Amino acid sequence: MNRERILQHLDGKVPDGPNKVSWALNTIIAVSAVAISLETMQGLPHWAYEALRVFEFAILLIFLAEYLLRIYCAEKRLRYIFSAWGLIDLVSCLPGLVFFQPQWQVVRTFRLLRILRVLKLFRSSRALERFGEALHSVRSELLMFVFLAMIMLYVSSVGIFIFEHEAQPEIFSSIPSSFWWAIASFTTVGYGDMIPITFGGRVFTTFILFVGLGVVAVPAAIVTTALIDTDSRIKHRKDSDETSQQKSTKGETPK
Amino acid sequence: MNRERILQHLDGKVPDGPNKVSWALNTIIAVSAVAISLETMQGLPHWAYEALRVFEFAILLIFLAEYLLRIYCAEKRLRYIFSAWGLIDLVSCLPGLVFFQPQWQVVRTFRLLRILRVLKLFRSSRALERFGEALHSVRSELLMFVFLAMIMLYVSSVGIFIFEHEAQPEIFSSIPSSFWWAIASFTTVGYGDMIPITFGGRVFTTFILFVGLGVVAVPAAIVTTALIDTDSRIKHRKDSDETSQQKSTKGETPK
Amino acid sequence: MNRERILQHLDGKVPDGPNKVSWALNTIIAVSAVAISLETMQGLPHWAYEALRVFEFAILLIFLAEYLLRIYCAEKRLRYIFSAWGLIDLVSCLPGLVFFQPQWQVVRTFRLLRILRVLKLFRSSRALERFGEALHSVRSELLMFVFLAMIMLYVSSVGIFIFEHEAQPEIFSSIPSSFWWAIASFTTVGYGDMIPITFGGRVFTTFILFVGLGVVAVPAAIVTTALIDTDSRIKHRKDSDETSQQKSTKGETPK
Amino acid sequence: MNRERILQHLDGKVPDGPNKVSWALNTIIAVSAVAISLETMQGLPHWAYEALRVFEFAILLIFLAEYLLRIYCAEKRLRYIFSAWGLIDLVSCLPGLVFFQPQWQVVRTFRLLRILRVLKLFRSSRALERFGEALHSVRSELLMFVFLAMIMLYVSSVGIFIFEHEAQPEIFSSIPSSFWWAIASFTTVGYGDMIPITFGGRVFTTFILFVGLGVVAVPAAIVTTALIDTDSRIKHRKDSDETSQQKSTKGETPK
Repeated sequence: MNRERILQHLDGKVPDGPNKVSWALNTIIAVSAVAISLETMQGLPHWAYEALRVFEFAILLIFLAEYLLRIYCAEKRLRYIFSAWGLIDLVSCLPGLVFFQPQWQVVRTFRLLRILRVLKLFRSSRALERFGEALHSVRSELLMFVFLAMIMLYVSSVGIFIFEHEAQPEIFSSIPSSFWWAIASFTTVGYGDMIPITFGGRVFTTFILFVGLGVVAVPAAIVTTALIDTDSRIKHRKDSDETSQQKSTKGETPK
Repeated sequence: MNRERILQHLDGKVPDGPNKVSWALNTIIAVSAVAISLETMQGLPHWAYEALRVFEFAILLIFLAEYLLRIYCAEKRLRYIFSAWGLIDLVSCLPGLVFFQPQWQVVRTFRLLRILRVLKLFRSSRALERFGEALHSVRSELLMFVFLAMIMLYVSSVGIFIFEHEAQPEIFSSIPSSFWWAIASFTTVGYGDMIPITFGGRVFTTFILFVGLGVVAVPAAIVTTALIDTDSRIKHRKDSDETSQQKSTKGETPK
Repeated sequence: MNRERILQHLDGKVPDGPNKVSWALNTIIAVSAVAISLETMQGLPHWAYEALRVFEFAILLIFLAEYLLRIYCAEKRLRYIFSAWGLIDLVSCLPGLVFFQPQWQVVRTFRLLRILRVLKLFRSSRALERFGEALHSVRSELLMFVFLAMIMLYVSSVGIFIFEHEAQPEIFSSIPSSFWWAIASFTTVGYGDMIPITFGGRVFTTFILFVGLGVVAVPAAIVTTALIDTDSRIKHRKDSDETSQQKSTKGETPK
Repeated sequence: MNRERILQHLDGKVPDGPNKVSWALNTIIAVSAVAISLETMQGLPHWAYEALRVFEFAILLIFLAEYLLRIYCAEKRLRYIFSAWGLIDLVSCLPGLVFFQPQWQVVRTFRLLRILRVLKLFRSSRALERFGEALHSVRSELLMFVFLAMIMLYVSSVGIFIFEHEAQPEIFSSIPSSFWWAIASFTTVGYGDMIPITFGGRVFTTFILFVGLGVVAVPAAIVTTALIDTDSRIKHRKDSDETSQQKSTKGETPK
């Protein structure tokens, strides 16, 4: 089994036969993501934390082995080590290794860098690629409407600050905090922690919501449309590829 | 009246004449669903609970009769009994019969299994079939975007946990509980039980909401589009079927 | 000025010249709607309530005059009186007349029937007609998805009741009150008065929200699409009408 | 460097070479918008406020210089001074100049007029133009659905007032305050400050939300669609312009 073949197995791009190794690694990543979540819960029995630590240690060894194997197999080793995937592979095991001792458990935030592991899921999937392709195909429209949405949000923040600051100085305390209100309102999330109470503020909100929802919804609508379009374009491309392959195959058969 | 004909009446698939029996059964199911709801309300007068019990008993007898009739009429009896519809028919009357005695009223959750009755509504309707057909036609896109949405939600949960855990250790207590925040925010429901208060958490939320709404909205958009598409496709198919039938009928008339 | 011409003026359908009377009546209706709103506010100065009463009295006289004039002008008087528009015209002035005395101000709810006046705005507008046409063109799809959405909402209510009733017996007190939670969640309004807190309830919500948003959004999407479609169809029809009129006019000119 | 050329630089419409001046001015506007926001925050160290004041003073001088330069360069000076852009340029520096003394800091609201500066960002961008073009192309549909949405909102307000006023006289205190509930509910923001609690109120909300979401969503959907349409139309127009230019260039080459 030569180096190239090992890489094909790790990347889930085996031309013939199933991608067992890649599927196993992806499953480990997904389970590991759940394990990292559970670790932050309080009130679990002691043995559960112990089991999670042992599990984490096993995963670390697997990812370390994968990392070293990839370095060994890479055509240009330095290039791989400093590539995006190389760094993600390193971060996937390093923080765990360094801070594995219990006394280091306090450096929680740093250890959570391990979740960058989930990005490895994109290596054998085409999802991120499609997402990037979709964003790229609409980048100019997206930029323009993000710009328009930002101005709309800024003007809303200043407006609501003018109306509500005196009535609720604690809540609408500054323009940046009013911006948080604008975000929660225009995305229609509406957490309810900042609510206009003055007559002027409510009339202003009514007016600006009707105009603004149409504007702020556009970036999300563009991304959604682009994702669906890219998807059908890729599917169409694949179909025509297969058709042309079949044709050429048919063309060859009579010979 | 032979067995097959009885089944046609029960299933609402009588080729000639109205489906009176099936309509009556569906009405009973709908009324029964309302009755089960009312039963859980407190503060109703005593006679109301009595009336609901009597009504429930009557329904149980009807469904039991239907179940036995279906077993009697089925071509292959064992096959029906262990089919999905057979089990649903059994569950529709069994829990009620077993726990009908007042002293058993405490086993509420188990008795609520009776609501699986509403699934019987789908037997004579084509709604569930269309829904399944719609989901099937977009299964690969759906899977991919559910995968993308899940990663987005997971990364958001970890991110908000890092920013907010120290400021609100009671509320953002762990990554799984932060996941609940992510669900409520990205679906734009925004219950308001978990709200970022730190500056970093709010900037992170603003950023991730703008990118994420476009991603998380895609699965819902795909299901919506697929449902509408399937519907118009079915309608179109039916129209062309009728047209071809009319043609063939016309073609036969001159003979 | 004959009877038919008076009706044309009242209905805003004068074939030649502006519809001044109809515009004036519509403005009065809009102003009256605002006045009825203001009347319910507390803390206004005494003279404001007096002014509103006088204003209301003037409007009553105008609508009474319109009503009597319409009876006088109608071709078939009894038919008009018992038609939908006739009843709306009557309700627009009757409650005000009967309960105008201050001692009757307590019968507030009944007096609020006057807001049915706003329906008169639709008489000279085509908005309601288009809305009805839109709903009619998609009635079968709408019915089916409302049915699907209702089942989804009912199943969600029962599910969340099973998970949350024990933990929050005061809030998720019965299935009908859980239905209110389902409505607020699936429309993504998310008032925040009923929030799942158990682990099972949150997992159930996550799962059902992802599937359900796609289903519950469909009726609203259908109505929106139908409204936009009907609008463009009407516009197209009008364009082609004008084109054919112009053609026929041109065709006649050479004669 | 003649007057026209200076204006081209200020407006970011230099036919040859980069628009450095315009980009610098736009950057200053964006940074200034952030500075105005920060100024309203409390709890910053004293030197930060000092730095913001000095920064603001520098910006004022730049905008004053730009204003005077524009007056000097304008072909018809009075016309520029009283044009929309002229007034915006004046307001961008005047309130800052007049109330720069610390004792005037109290006139906060008036000073916030400076945020109208962000409108200057639209001078060299085509975003506002496109937005206007989009709104203009759908003005009649928009008007009709805003009218329909307004009636729907008004009827909802009166309805919920009738149901909830007695149960919650403090919260649903009048029809105008109920209108605020209608806005928050139909935009699906759902702040949670006003929530129906009576059975009638909840049934009414359920019913009206299902019908109303389809109606109230239409104006926002129209604006979104129009923005995307206008954008692709402009792009298409630009493409065909370039194509025709290339053609004419090609056509001239052989000569």
